[in-house]
Amino acid sequence: MDLALLYSGGKDSTLAALLLDSFYDVTLVTGRFGVTDDWKHARDAADRLGYDFDTVELDRAVAEDAADLMVEDGYPRNGIQRVHEHALERVAELDVAAVADGTRRDDRVPTVSRAQAQSLEDRHDVDYLSPLVGFGRHAVDKLVEEKLDVESGPSERIPKGDYEGELRALLAERHGQETISTVFPDHEQTYVRGLK
Amino acid sequence: MDLALLYSGGKDSTLAALLLDSFYDVTLVTGRFGVTDDWKHARDAADRLGYDFDTVELDRAVAEDAADLMVEDGYPRNGIQRVHEHALERVAELDVAAVADGTRRDDRVPTVSRAQAQSLEDRHDVDYLSPLVGFGRHAVDKLVEEKLDVESGPSERIPKGDYEGELRALLAERHGQETISTVFPDHEQTYVRGLK
Repeated sequence: MDLALLYSGGKDSTLAALLLDSFYDVTLVTGRFGVTDDWKHARDAADRLGYDFDTVELDRAVAEDAADLMVEDGYPRNGIQRVHEHALERVAELDVAAVADGTRRDDRVPTVSRAQAQSLEDRHDVDYLSPLVGFGRHAVDKLVEEKLDVESGPSERIPKGDYEGELRALLAERHGQETISTVFPDHEQTYVRGLK
Repeated sequence: MDLALLYSGGKDSTLAALLLDSFYDVTLVTGRFGVTDDWKHARDAADRLGYDFDTVELDRAVAEDAADLMVEDGYPRNGIQRVHEHALERVAELDVAAVADGTRRDDRVPTVSRAQAQSLEDRHDVDYLSPLVGFGRHAVDKLVEEKLDVESGPSERIPKGDYEGELRALLAERHGQETISTVFPDHEQTYVRGLK
């Protein structure tokens, strides 16, 4: 069964791929708004891990709205949630039996409620899986340590294929470089170099 | 890392084992109240699947309370929830890095909230995993069809190692045979014969 996993090149979505790949033919899929080429980092990670890779085009207007919302809020949560929901919709339009993402039990954002999951499944006739949603942060960290060779550091230094790079670029473009550090307080990102 | 998975011999807990076994040294563990020998069905399934198997002793008073609660309610939900929470506590007392169960996204019962999961983890210094909680009913059914050789039918005909057999026996003992069908309306059970 074909499965499209929304992929960033980070530890969570990579671990989600490892959990699913005995059960599905997994393709790692990265959304791109056309703002930057950050998606190539996700492609490179997918290549090193030996997974098929694809991209879906996302709507730049959604990213712009999300960037504006983040500035208005003063924090990124709602903007990231909006972008994630949009990306899931696009991935669910692919011709696959199932779509998945790397959301974890302890994530504050993005989250996909049971009602949202059911709606996505019904509208697109697809299964939606979040294989890590039954795993807490500690369990994920231990599995990552055991299975993955990971590079960690602050967002601006770690290459990554998720939306954050594109959202940061849009923030700078629309609201000035200084808004980036206001909206995204220092937080650590991870990028997967390969399997251990 | 050692993991103890609360096991019934049914499709959900078996699928949970398959999802976890590339990451953990899985032992299938069945709770027993000492009311019937139904746990042996779970042991037999574990043997056929090639997993290590163990049992934990459960407190008969919990099962009796649960049976009384079910009769009072007229439905089994709260009683099953109480028994499941008790069994998770007992499994979490084992000397393992992680415990797990087969709860699914669409299960009405048992459910383990994020707060309950966190509490179990903190009190027992263990990770709690519910690998199927990110899978809907349709996805589980498709995976079971692909991976497992399963026998299905009404509860009274299907051998199974979960608490239901013991709870049914206690209901009959304490409240009369006829309460069983009032409390447990007809529902289908599964028992795993082996891998496909």
